[in-house]
Amino acid sequence: MRVAIVGATGAVGHELMAVLEKSQQEGKLKFDELQLYASPRSAGSKLTFAGKELTVQVTPDGPIDADVILASAGGSVSKALAHKWIQNGAVVIDNSSAFRYDADVPLVVPEVNGEAALRHKGIIANPNCTTAIAVVAVAPIHRKYGVKRMIVSTYQATSGAGQKGMDELLEQTHVVLHGGEASHKEFVHPIPFNVIPHIDVFQDNGYTKEEMKVQWETQKIIGDDSLKISCTAVRIPTLRTHSEAITLDLAKPATPAEIRELLSTAAGVEVRDDPEGKLYPMPLTATRKYDVEVGRIRESLVFDGGIDLFVSGDQLLKGAALNAVQIAEYLQAHGALGGAVSPQLSAVSP
Amino acid sequence: MRVAIVGATGAVGHELMAVLEKSQQEGKLKFDELQLYASPRSAGSKLTFAGKELTVQVTPDGPIDADVILASAGGSVSKALAHKWIQNGAVVIDNSSAFRYDADVPLVVPEVNGEAALRHKGIIANPNCTTAIAVVAVAPIHRKYGVKRMIVSTYQATSGAGQKGMDELLEQTHVVLHGGEASHKEFVHPIPFNVIPHIDVFQDNGYTKEEMKVQWETQKIIGDDSLKISCTAVRIPTLRTHSEAITLDLAKPATPAEIRELLSTAAGVEVRDDPEGKLYPMPLTATRKYDVEVGRIRESLVFDGGIDLFVSGDQLLKGAALNAVQIAEYLQAHGALGGAVSPQLSAVSP
Repeated sequence: MRVAIVGATGAVGHELMAVLEKSQQEGKLKFDELQLYASPRSAGSKLTFAGKELTVQVTPDGPIDADVILASAGGSVSKALAHKWIQNGAVVIDNSSAFRYDADVPLVVPEVNGEAALRHKGIIANPNCTTAIAVVAVAPIHRKYGVKRMIVSTYQATSGAGQKGMDELLEQTHVVLHGGEASHKEFVHPIPFNVIPHIDVFQDNGYTKEEMKVQWETQKIIGDDSLKISCTAVRIPTLRTHSEAITLDLAKPATPAEIRELLSTAAGVEVRDDPEGKLYPMPLTATRKYDVEVGRIRESLVFDGGIDLFVSGDQLLKGAALNAVQIAEYLQAHGALGGAVSPQLSAVSP
Repeated sequence: MRVAIVGATGAVGHELMAVLEKSQQEGKLKFDELQLYASPRSAGSKLTFAGKELTVQVTPDGPIDADVILASAGGSVSKALAHKWIQNGAVVIDNSSAFRYDADVPLVVPEVNGEAALRHKGIIANPNCTTAIAVVAVAPIHRKYGVKRMIVSTYQATSGAGQKGMDELLEQTHVVLHGGEASHKEFVHPIPFNVIPHIDVFQDNGYTKEEMKVQWETQKIIGDDSLKISCTAVRIPTLRTHSEAITLDLAKPATPAEIRELLSTAAGVEVRDDPEGKLYPMPLTATRKYDVEVGRIRESLVFDGGIDLFVSGDQLLKGAALNAVQIAEYLQAHGALGGAVSPQLSAVSP
């Protein structure tokens, strides 16, 4: 089984390598070849996978001879090239928003709608990070109690803008601490000690695309267009891990204890909800964790029988790399991807 | 007219001095004596007001001979001493939560319910910062359209924990930037590059006291106990100025244009709402500004005819010092405080 990463040198690419290595070690995804691709600027650089050095190649403008391609090279690259990459039979799991809203492209969070991945026609979309993190907590609640309305306010880390975003936060914070004035390039305004309620472009309805993605993608993943969602997406000066305050109006009333019980067995979720013990979701504890932390579960004060909760999930993991690898694992576990020649990496480079 | 500040050396005390000086210069609050008080630890220090040096005295355990006392020394000090301070006829405008929920203590935001201040019995409460900032934007909407439900998620600065809170953020951020591990004292967890959904103590219902304050105080200031409010209060790594994402369910439907028009003439509000021009509320622009910035005004996607908006207000100003001085100005303008002997400061120290 051959795996390719397109965009191997970016922040998500870096996480894809780590998640793939762990998945292989644990026998979850079996593959015997890993190909790495990036832009001409990064091509030729060497990356280490499972102790072996691999050379990054230029992203091809034609077929990629792999079984699964994990793409994280941005929407314009995927839009232009994904259909060419898959000409020899590969499936692309694409991290960009290029194909998410296409009717014939499954948008998949394995814990929620893994089976949709099996109906792909060559391309599977990985959801927006904010959506992926929210939906692992909300989908089990929707299944049991029916979510009618959902209000989301996000606390999004600079990792959402990739390594350059995190670098800008660190560098510009350093500038401010030394009495200087922060500049900005990756973000619309200076980010140190600031809050920017503007992520992605504004739509005609006054919402940003990032905010609308949460509605569009949650509806598609959960498979319920009647679910109403209002989101406010806000960039804050953290490095990685997005947090979200979520208020849910439910069709069937639920108590916090019932929700806590329900989520304690939900896949991809860690209930971290002990106010007395000062335990609740935070970037400090959720960073580099596969599970999404869910806590502050309490009765809504605006919806009878509704629930308020708070989630923190690593944007680079469940919000990107981890979810993509989990889709590949799901496909393989259901016989929809090539099997492994051996559990060890044999041929390591194209 | 004699003004006293209790807690003069704290972060809010510092802002009170600056706001008072400006108010006097602009002829808004007329007074001819300023007394400064603080804990024994800070007593004896010198502070400059309008070019004159004043000595900080120890907060008395008895009457303060002033007309108005602006107190920002914490709830326990106010609880223990406020009734003694006013024995000679002064009125206390108290920044702590000690008296906010007492039936005979007015809780006042001058733009919203200034007239309530005139009914005081010696003590007037200044609201919680988060509430004060939200209510200047929400009250005009409530008056015209009737707010039925309000969902608030906060982005609260470290200034909410005073100067020590801001110092901890700066110092510990420096530690992290130099490869160290952040420690914490003022906050429940390390604050650099983190998000802490825990401000003030937890209540039995799973909400923090900070979150409940927004409900209790908004209801009291607006004078409508039927208004339902769910809040998630979150500390983030910013220095000053709180931001809040607010979703409103309205009794009478409103359009974003109508709300923008309404708020454009509302006292204490600056509509900053031009997505194309990248203008929306942010700590970067709202810090040290008297008006609360309101923007991102858009149609709610969960409530028919409802509104989503975003506010940023300086926690130390409208959320504390400015509101207190505005209450004093309101009292004086309505003949409920001593007049000025002269617009200039004559006797400067007790």
